[in-house]
Amino acid sequence: MLQPPPARVGMSESEIDTPALLIDLDAFEANLDLMAGLMAQHGTKLRAHAKTHKSPVIAHRQIARGAVGQCVQKVAEAEILAWGGVQDILISNEVVGADKIARLVALTKICRIAVCVDDAGQVDALGATAAAAGAELRVLVEIDVGAGRCGVSPGPAAVELAQRIEAHQHLRFGGLQAYHGGAQHLRSFAERQAAIGGAIDATRRTIEQLRQVGLSCEIVGGAGTGSFDIEATSGVFTEIQAGSYVFMDADYARNFDQSGAPVSRFQHALFVLGTVMSAAQPGVAVLDVGHKAASVDSGYPTVWQRPGVTYVGASDEHGSLKIAEGVASPAIGDKLRLVPGHCDPTVDRYDWYVGVRGGRVECLWPVAARGGMF
Amino acid sequence: MLQPPPARVGMSESEIDTPALLIDLDAFEANLDLMAGLMAQHGTKLRAHAKTHKSPVIAHRQIARGAVGQCVQKVAEAEILAWGGVQDILISNEVVGADKIARLVALTKICRIAVCVDDAGQVDALGATAAAAGAELRVLVEIDVGAGRCGVSPGPAAVELAQRIEAHQHLRFGGLQAYHGGAQHLRSFAERQAAIGGAIDATRRTIEQLRQVGLSCEIVGGAGTGSFDIEATSGVFTEIQAGSYVFMDADYARNFDQSGAPVSRFQHALFVLGTVMSAAQPGVAVLDVGHKAASVDSGYPTVWQRPGVTYVGASDEHGSLKIAEGVASPAIGDKLRLVPGHCDPTVDRYDWYVGVRGGRVECLWPVAARGGMF
Repeated sequence: MLQPPPARVGMSESEIDTPALLIDLDAFEANLDLMAGLMAQHGTKLRAHAKTHKSPVIAHRQIARGAVGQCVQKVAEAEILAWGGVQDILISNEVVGADKIARLVALTKICRIAVCVDDAGQVDALGATAAAAGAELRVLVEIDVGAGRCGVSPGPAAVELAQRIEAHQHLRFGGLQAYHGGAQHLRSFAERQAAIGGAIDATRRTIEQLRQVGLSCEIVGGAGTGSFDIEATSGVFTEIQAGSYVFMDADYARNFDQSGAPVSRFQHALFVLGTVMSAAQPGVAVLDVGHKAASVDSGYPTVWQRPGVTYVGASDEHGSLKIAEGVASPAIGDKLRLVPGHCDPTVDRYDWYVGVRGGRVECLWPVAARGGMF
Repeated sequence: MLQPPPARVGMSESEIDTPALLIDLDAFEANLDLMAGLMAQHGTKLRAHAKTHKSPVIAHRQIARGAVGQCVQKVAEAEILAWGGVQDILISNEVVGADKIARLVALTKICRIAVCVDDAGQVDALGATAAAAGAELRVLVEIDVGAGRCGVSPGPAAVELAQRIEAHQHLRFGGLQAYHGGAQHLRSFAERQAAIGGAIDATRRTIEQLRQVGLSCEIVGGAGTGSFDIEATSGVFTEIQAGSYVFMDADYARNFDQSGAPVSRFQHALFVLGTVMSAAQPGVAVLDVGHKAASVDSGYPTVWQRPGVTYVGASDEHGSLKIAEGVASPAIGDKLRLVPGHCDPTVDRYDWYVGVRGGRVECLWPVAARGGMF
């Protein structure tokens, strides 16, 4: 059952029912503009990652500012974007299973779509389904540039897979996927630069080996919010796949920039709004935001602009706030904004975004691609 | 948008699309029967907690075996159960805010419902709304018996609140809520017994003080899957609120019973089914089950009946499996069952349960009360 939205357009922020997922529209638009400007400056294309926002509305805001399209992580997200009018989608991931591949190939009829592989058998499975549907599918080779997750090794293994793609009449080799997820949250810029430097070298080497067998890369994609400046100025990557920059979660804000200061150029634009539901014990207040309303996989949410009030514990439907000595405790009924520790899985818990500006609700957008389905 | 179910009734388990939330129906029914038998033996009533399963279908299975009704943690869950025909519901939690209280009071017209308070102002807010609706609402006083979260202190503070409830013409004092959440996952039985012993003493003392002012407790509720035998045999608690026993997650299975052995009388009945989507690097396989398909707040999921295969890392849509030396790696396309670390927030990520028995899909049930809304 779809949940009713927790707000109506026009009401004040204090009237929003909680827990609710807020977008601060001024901060959100500033983030969109800043990234568009950086991409123009670096001469690189943005293919923003929709696994963060799961919303065709937000995808179109990014594309209107110059993004070439969207990345997604699974077929279910690609479907929602394609059905919402997004025309150029890359599944930056492997897709396994006959049903999922059939759904993927069906999307070639309504948008430009590409997918990644790291296995010869999967190339053949994609090729057979594309042939049966009379479709042409673009396929990228994913290389493991340090994350130790998906992807073949850079170099000959990637070349071999690319040639296998090209050998299928209904597949077309589309380039390389080279995302280093493990580097995004290395705290110092120097650590991230070292890790991404290795990824760039491995990717450059693989591109050169592909060229030697006559294969060129239309897309060389990768990078996230933690590292994108490095890939964007490498001369190797053609598409930047940052996603979290639109919302900027608490964990990305724990990274340090080149000057050694906490990263601050993107603003926190995503908040979970909670209500204090209990304040019966001294020094403690309890908020209606627990595991089912905010993810804790990258740490607890932080309390926005309430010095001395700290989120210290979560259970299913409760968040415990510790109130520092000498600080006034929030009262029952008070509404507090939290900055999620990790925006992507927090967004995934909600059916609705509530867009606020100047203290009022300006819009409601569905979190259209929410949910566990692949 | 509601997700389509990942299976059809009658198909084999190997055909289920992934990630999917499976109920092993034999194990599930054995858990239901075992708990019903234990309650009969202890002479205590079960008011099973629906924050675990969020399903009227499962609620009715519990009630058919003797449960007096259901607990929920929020109004949105109470609504879904009431709309699904559950007749006796306790919100074992505080409800704050005019809209939520209005929705709560509206439910008095279609079911027996009760709610908890730990604040005088909230008693008055409930009383005013019940009066305006011409409704009678049962209200329990929540006491803090050790969890340090919600609840007034046992003793005089609770008596004062109970008297305030009784003073409202449209409210009726319904008893005490005395849940010790912090005790549920203390690993040894002795630790749990000590913690719950304190909760029982505090509750008994409060009941006696209430009796001295002429107030009796229709409900004395509390207990969870980790501790319920202790409350059930205390002579103090009248209703047991265990929830997780229906599914038995990996974290509860890390508790030890009275004999010092891992708790094993309830069976794992809830699984996340995943597909291996990458096996490009030696010693590693990648499953399509990450943060968006299984919660990690109580540890990673465990891999079911695959010795030497361990879930060691999660990202948004990926779970990394480590393959021990000498163990055959699962192949791309292989489907594996995982036991969730924590069942409640894992269930909350899905729209559908897939009930399986003997390797076939027997039923599809909606996770009807899913989602962040309170």
